[in-house]
Amino acid sequence: MKPVRENVSAKRAEITGGFWKEKQDLLKNVTARAIWDRFEETGRFGALLGKTGEGIPKPHIFWDSDTAKWIEGAAALLLHRKDAELEAKCDELIARACALQAEDGYLNSYFQVIEPENRFTRRSQHELYCLGHWIEAAVVYDEATGKKELLHACEKYADLVDRVFRAEHSAAFDTPGHEEIELALYRLYRHTGKEKYMTLMRYFIDTRGTARDRSQEERDQSYHQAHMPVREQETCEGHSVRAMYLYSAMADQAAEDGDEALRAACVKLWHNCVSRRMYVTGGIGSSHVGESFTEDWDLPSHAAYAETCAALGLALFARRMLRLDLKGEYMDTAELALYNGALSGLSLSGDAFFYENPLAYSPRYSRVVQRWGSKGVHHAIGERVKVFGCSCCPPNVLRVYGALQEFLYGEDEDALYVHMFASSRAQTHFGEIRQDTDYPRAGGTAITLPGGRYALYVRVPGWARELSVTLNGKTIPSQVRDGYLCVQGPFAQNDCLKVDFTLPVLFLRANPKVSNLAGKVCVTRGPVVYCLEEKDNGAELNDLAVRVPSVPVIRQDPAMGLPVITLPGSRGEEACGALYAAEAWPRRNCSLTFIPFHAWANRGENEMQVWVRAE
Amino acid sequence: MKPVRENVSAKRAEITGGFWKEKQDLLKNVTARAIWDRFEETGRFGALLGKTGEGIPKPHIFWDSDTAKWIEGAAALLLHRKDAELEAKCDELIARACALQAEDGYLNSYFQVIEPENRFTRRSQHELYCLGHWIEAAVVYDEATGKKELLHACEKYADLVDRVFRAEHSAAFDTPGHEEIELALYRLYRHTGKEKYMTLMRYFIDTRGTARDRSQEERDQSYHQAHMPVREQETCEGHSVRAMYLYSAMADQAAEDGDEALRAACVKLWHNCVSRRMYVTGGIGSSHVGESFTEDWDLPSHAAYAETCAALGLALFARRMLRLDLKGEYMDTAELALYNGALSGLSLSGDAFFYENPLAYSPRYSRVVQRWGSKGVHHAIGERVKVFGCSCCPPNVLRVYGALQEFLYGEDEDALYVHMFASSRAQTHFGEIRQDTDYPRAGGTAITLPGGRYALYVRVPGWARELSVTLNGKTIPSQVRDGYLCVQGPFAQNDCLKVDFTLPVLFLRANPKVSNLAGKVCVTRGPVVYCLEEKDNGAELNDLAVRVPSVPVIRQDPAMGLPVITLPGSRGEEACGALYAAEAWPRRNCSLTFIPFHAWANRGENEMQVWVRAE
Repeated sequence: MKPVRENVSAKRAEITGGFWKEKQDLLKNVTARAIWDRFEETGRFGALLGKTGEGIPKPHIFWDSDTAKWIEGAAALLLHRKDAELEAKCDELIARACALQAEDGYLNSYFQVIEPENRFTRRSQHELYCLGHWIEAAVVYDEATGKKELLHACEKYADLVDRVFRAEHSAAFDTPGHEEIELALYRLYRHTGKEKYMTLMRYFIDTRGTARDRSQEERDQSYHQAHMPVREQETCEGHSVRAMYLYSAMADQAAEDGDEALRAACVKLWHNCVSRRMYVTGGIGSSHVGESFTEDWDLPSHAAYAETCAALGLALFARRMLRLDLKGEYMDTAELALYNGALSGLSLSGDAFFYENPLAYSPRYSRVVQRWGSKGVHHAIGERVKVFGCSCCPPNVLRVYGALQEFLYGEDEDALYVHMFASSRAQTHFGEIRQDTDYPRAGGTAITLPGGRYALYVRVPGWARELSVTLNGKTIPSQVRDGYLCVQGPFAQNDCLKVDFTLPVLFLRANPKVSNLAGKVCVTRGPVVYCLEEKDNGAELNDLAVRVPSVPVIRQDPAMGLPVITLPGSRGEEACGALYAAEAWPRRNCSLTFIPFHAWANRGENEMQVWVRAE
Repeated sequence: MKPVRENVSAKRAEITGGFWKEKQDLLKNVTARAIWDRFEETGRFGALLGKTGEGIPKPHIFWDSDTAKWIEGAAALLLHRKDAELEAKCDELIARACALQAEDGYLNSYFQVIEPENRFTRRSQHELYCLGHWIEAAVVYDEATGKKELLHACEKYADLVDRVFRAEHSAAFDTPGHEEIELALYRLYRHTGKEKYMTLMRYFIDTRGTARDRSQEERDQSYHQAHMPVREQETCEGHSVRAMYLYSAMADQAAEDGDEALRAACVKLWHNCVSRRMYVTGGIGSSHVGESFTEDWDLPSHAAYAETCAALGLALFARRMLRLDLKGEYMDTAELALYNGALSGLSLSGDAFFYENPLAYSPRYSRVVQRWGSKGVHHAIGERVKVFGCSCCPPNVLRVYGALQEFLYGEDEDALYVHMFASSRAQTHFGEIRQDTDYPRAGGTAITLPGGRYALYVRVPGWARELSVTLNGKTIPSQVRDGYLCVQGPFAQNDCLKVDFTLPVLFLRANPKVSNLAGKVCVTRGPVVYCLEEKDNGAELNDLAVRVPSVPVIRQDPAMGLPVITLPGSRGEEACGALYAAEAWPRRNCSLTFIPFHAWANRGENEMQVWVRAE
């Protein structure tokens, strides 16, 4: 295996302009505060006081993870932005957590208050998942502020876990029901340099799905990816967020240890995910039952679950795969999720959220499903809300997009990597690298380089067209391999590499094996997936067809943050009333307005469709 | 309103050859006996003995209707075929029923044995539905054998119902939860000439959905079409079999009374059904929840409920609409149901049945739905079974197809009507009319006429092409209006009118408002809907596409009873593994074998699709 390239960390990289800068500003100014208010109101933050009694809501087993993710998100925003209020709130919450922590290191606002006798007895109860999020918050908060109280608390808790689970086997289960601790331990190991956390991480990864691990199980093992040892897994099974966190940790361990079997499993799982079970938006997990992957080619649009956290998890997995394997498809896919299936989880106003991200919505379909579907049937909501009972997605949006700069750059001994485009700067061991770009409103990026003897790899997205590359104004050859352009140095300080490409409007079709997408196309431009919304196109979106191919009109739209696309198409004549006919249906021409998928449902409840009939 | 044309009754018409003769022979030789055996085994026939105790199954509230429909079916077959065994069994069952009947006329093997104190107290409990089926059985058995015991018993029971419901209002409800009594009373009125049964029928029709009728209701009124007075109803709502029985009775009453408001309601309901809510197979009732209609354009293929009884009910409604309105679309639609969505309820062997008739089936879809659908989720079975817990469909198939000749001819004062094609003869008041035809294996029919001064109307199906008409070998003009060719008499005895047309293979498309059928076509030939089955075409039917247009190869298939069609098409290359692409998918040509929809699932469980991707 080749030496591992590292991502340039969120602390050492900074987004300085453009679409993602605007989103990060919104996260700091609106989202972080909106979630804070909701978590205060619902008792999540109060739960850390460890009190019970009249008027105090009973904590939920995963409330600590919500709080920890909020701290991690606030900390990520503090990396490059001062905000005394956010920092003070983090300090207060961390102080509560440290005060609550038990003598032996245990920390859980549910079990310590409600069921102290039952700690580490139920695999499904999210204790190690919560610790994982505490650890991630602690690492980022230390990076942002240098304050180490939470880090020390987490280390103490992790040491307890190491003793109870790995050394003594005295817990009632071997591996957690909801993965997260594994990748967090890797992060703790990398942050502290302490090998024991890597050892514990390996223990959890290597134990999962073994005969002993399975013997304690009461429910379908594949729900939490424990149906077989992880190195033998070839298809994405079970709860999609858990799966992504596990696969992310597997990729971390494979990179750390040069573990070829683990790497091969990651590659197989990746391909099963993106080539068989992923929505075109980067959403994953088709079914609300178990919030799960289902089977190959099962990608219903209206009934899509496609949890925000799962799309975020796919991006996290992709970023880690890049350490193992320099292939453009990883960031192509991460961008799909980040610009579409995950970002749709956040309103344009920054203070409302989707948990599920269906690819089609209609009030009528919801009504049909509610009334005529099966008992206990499920359907997505059509407007974002401020908070959920299970409100994992909002703070996950905050922490992942708050540290989005970690996706931009990579480095190793003899190379620098530009994985993703955003106006930004990053400190590498060769010096500062900068990008100036209006991506994805337009194609291309201008990269200002540090001087040095290294190779520069720049990702060229799979959908990019008309590539041209100049170094200091002079055209240079632009051979692309596996989605990366490679320019060999040495480079002089402030050499400027311009990579230009167009963002064509594409009409994607789904593999014919996806039955429900026959005859339909998805309009994309660069990494951005588009949809039709009733507000722009009238009701009965089913009845609209887009002309393929046709020439798009692209108009920047400041409210949506990304361009709006107009394409010619048609709709059925009003009088066209028959149900079946051998002749062509009478249609009249019309103009169709496509908006970025992530921006749907910001103008009231209405119909939406990603996959549109082609004509 | 024009004078009403009558259907030539099943007693006066007889099918003498061809596809339907073969089916009626199968019904007599296999189906009637298979259902008999199952109903004996399950205790349905035994329930009429009115006994309870160890080893005697507890009767179900609708068992009497199963038995009555079996008698009606056997009676229909006895109209033109001797069968001492069937007749003896009918006699035995009728003797049991008459012995069970209470002094006051009440007859119900459930309530008399299990809850004698609760008769006529619960609207949902099918008492009047069972009586309706007893009446229909009694009328046909009298016609077939001249034996009137059951008829007399039914009259006595109907008189009790008239007193309790209409005169005294002493029942706990006003109109039954499952319609059927209404059309049966009309039949009883026509058979006996007794006006009181027409009065009682009108009472039930006119009372349904009135404020008083609704006041006693505990559940959604639209479930049994009681959400508003029947003359105000414009959309097909609720349980689809109940709806069809109600609309059939409404059409009977409209014809009998020249009731224009009732006729107008029937026409609106008809159009809502066939132009918005009917499967291309003539199946209706999209959802298993309440076995119900849902909303316009909601016609899922895999999840289709499309109960056999509902398609039969649509044919019964269509036949009655023809009395009100001479339009080809009624029999075009009835044929759709009779050749497809209802006939699929019967195996080619004659002894196994479908209750539901989905338009697509795959073992994988069933697995996905079972595992990943909602709690209590529903999916159709993939192979026919011998009997159901709720086994209404098998005897319904027996009685409707057993009397199928009633669909063929109509008459009024100055005209004869040929509505449907089958080798047959019928006694009209002008004399005997005969058809000689191989329909629908081939197009056209040769009609031998009685002499007389009348007009002859012959239906020309909407899909028919290349029409030519000869009278005694000489071409005559062939003007078609509203789907009927009219030839003015007078005619000489044995004049021969030959109506020839071709049965083109059509590629039907669904209205674009039906989202899930985008890009797909349904192959039909004449009234017969075709489907792909895995046995002929391999697995992954989703991945097949049929060339549109293309030239079919038609091959008669004795096993299926109707031709098999071969068409060119394509399937995905094995290597075609990506999930989304802007380029065309690599495909290779193949030949697709389409079989008649009704004949699917006769060779073991396998995939099936009616709607096929078009290329």
